[in-house]
Amino acid sequence: MRVVVNAAMSADGKLSSKRRDQITISGPDDFDRVDALRAGSDAVMVGVGTVLADDPHLTLDDPERQTARRERDEPAHPARVVADSRARTPTDARILDDAATTYVFVAESAPAERIEALEAAGARLVTAGEERVDLASALPSLEREGVEQLMVEGGGELIFSLFEAGLADELRVFVGSKLVGGRDAPTLADGEGFVAEFPELELDDVERVDDGVLLRYAVV
Amino acid sequence: MRVVVNAAMSADGKLSSKRRDQITISGPDDFDRVDALRAGSDAVMVGVGTVLADDPHLTLDDPERQTARRERDEPAHPARVVADSRARTPTDARILDDAATTYVFVAESAPAERIEALEAAGARLVTAGEERVDLASALPSLEREGVEQLMVEGGGELIFSLFEAGLADELRVFVGSKLVGGRDAPTLADGEGFVAEFPELELDDVERVDDGVLLRYAVV
Ligand SMILES: NC(=O)c1ccc[n+]([C@@H]2O[C@H](COP(=O)([O-])OP(=O)(O)OC[C@H]3O[C@@H](n4cnc5c(N)ncnc54)[C@H](OP(=O)(O)O)[C@@H]3O)[C@@H](O)[C@H]2O)c1
Ligand SMILES: NC(=O)c1ccc[n+]([C@@H]2O[C@H](COP(=O)([O-])OP(=O)(O)OC[C@H]3O[C@@H](n4cnc5c(N)ncnc54)[C@H](OP(=O)(O)O)[C@@H]3O)[C@@H](O)[C@H]2O)c1
Repeated sequence: MRVVVNAAMSADGKLSSKRRDQITISGPDDFDRVDALRAGSDAVMVGVGTVLADDPHLTLDDPERQTARRERDEPAHPARVVADSRARTPTDARILDDAATTYVFVAESAPAERIEALEAAGARLVTAGEERVDLASALPSLEREGVEQLMVEGGGELIFSLFEAGLADELRVFVGSKLVGGRDAPTLADGEGFVAEFPELELDDVERVDDGVLLRYAVV
Repeated sequence: MRVVVNAAMSADGKLSSKRRDQITISGPDDFDRVDALRAGSDAVMVGVGTVLADDPHLTLDDPERQTARRERDEPAHPARVVADSRARTPTDARILDDAATTYVFVAESAPAERIEALEAAGARLVTAGEERVDLASALPSLEREGVEQLMVEGGGELIFSLFEAGLADELRVFVGSKLVGGRDAPTLADGEGFVAEFPELELDDVERVDDGVLLRYAVV
């Protein structure tokens, strides 16, 4: 399975302000690029932090891309995935509507009543890890469901964990022309952070998009 | 006076690891570009956080650039400036050696004995602000000394304050092909952070340098 991490950050590496409000970093051309990347992916993953902060839908905007997927005998939208150790995804989250299949990765310690609530809301639960979702053992379950390309849309906690576990194959970053600042604002890769042996990237492509720049890296 | 902010960050916006160890983000071509930018500046500023973490010298590496400055009747190296409210710069810091003039910006509350120690070590003290250096009132003192271009090399606390005070004219960021991660690692712009009305930048130039990319912005 190919794991493609995609996010939009400010010129100083932030995914949002310290208030965790969603902010407009990119523009229409980048939104369209993201829609196309979603359309070419079998599943799109976020962390529960992003679900709680932004309540994203993660479906395709462009009806033609949905039609094209249907014509390839694929569902109109890619599946959605939330990394959510304690099963905190609200049952009325937009990610749980019936537009697409939704997987929720939980840990063994997730409260039984929350798991039942999410199952009743239509989610497919995958348990991996004791206290926190173990991504390395959860991802193969997607592969068994036919996911060949997994797009990861953030946030910074989930992205760090994917790199830490050596699971990311590609990184695409739109760098917007805005300064956000803030020692507490979410960045592209948060978590504990590396202190030695930083993951090396290879810059494959640089392209101006909207008022910013899109950087595409392969993970070495 | 023109204020040019320059820094090297990882692909995820970090200036160093969470341990605040200096890490190699750029390569020889970017080092040379930084040396040239220093040579074309009348003064180079950092925050005391950078002095304490990295003990930088901030002088020119290239002897030819030093000669060229001398031939223009300028000192071999640009002046050095530290923003250091409490006068914590160690008297044996490399920035205080006699290779160039060094200004230390302090606040009114800085301990008298520290101020004396720094003056004895050859620093020129500038007092501005009560508890913290007030950059807007400190920078004109450099202008009076003939500083037409001030280069700011970081770190993220100082850079944020300059943007907050509307003092930055240009931002040059080398984005290295490395992931550092860490919610506590220093980023290009830390401080309190903006929550609305983010400073807008204009991406003037994108250039591949070493294994990364150099982004040049004008501050709108
Ligand atoms: N600009 C963009 O492209 C973009 C994209 C996405 C998000 N964002 C912004 O990013 C912010 C949210 O980011 P975030 O970093 O706080 O949240 P996040 O990465 O979306 O979610 C983090 C949470 O996921 C759960 N999780 C489960 N397993 C995990 C694992 N193995 N590793 C890491 N996390 C795991 C953890 O909660 P549990 O321990 O409870 O499971 C963790 O707190 C929001 O402000 C949002 O607006 C921006
Ligand atoms: N990659 C790069 O290009 C690069 C460049 C520089 C630094 N770095 C890294 O950045 C880290 C240090 O960054 P940092 O953000 O901690 O420190 P910093 O910005 O260098 O210094 C911050 C300190 O400056 C003092 N200061 C005085 N007046 C200020 C004002 N008006 N606004 C903000 N600060 C003011 C404050 O201490 P007082 O209150 O005591 O005055 C503040 O804590 C180190 O890890 C270093 O390796 C990397």
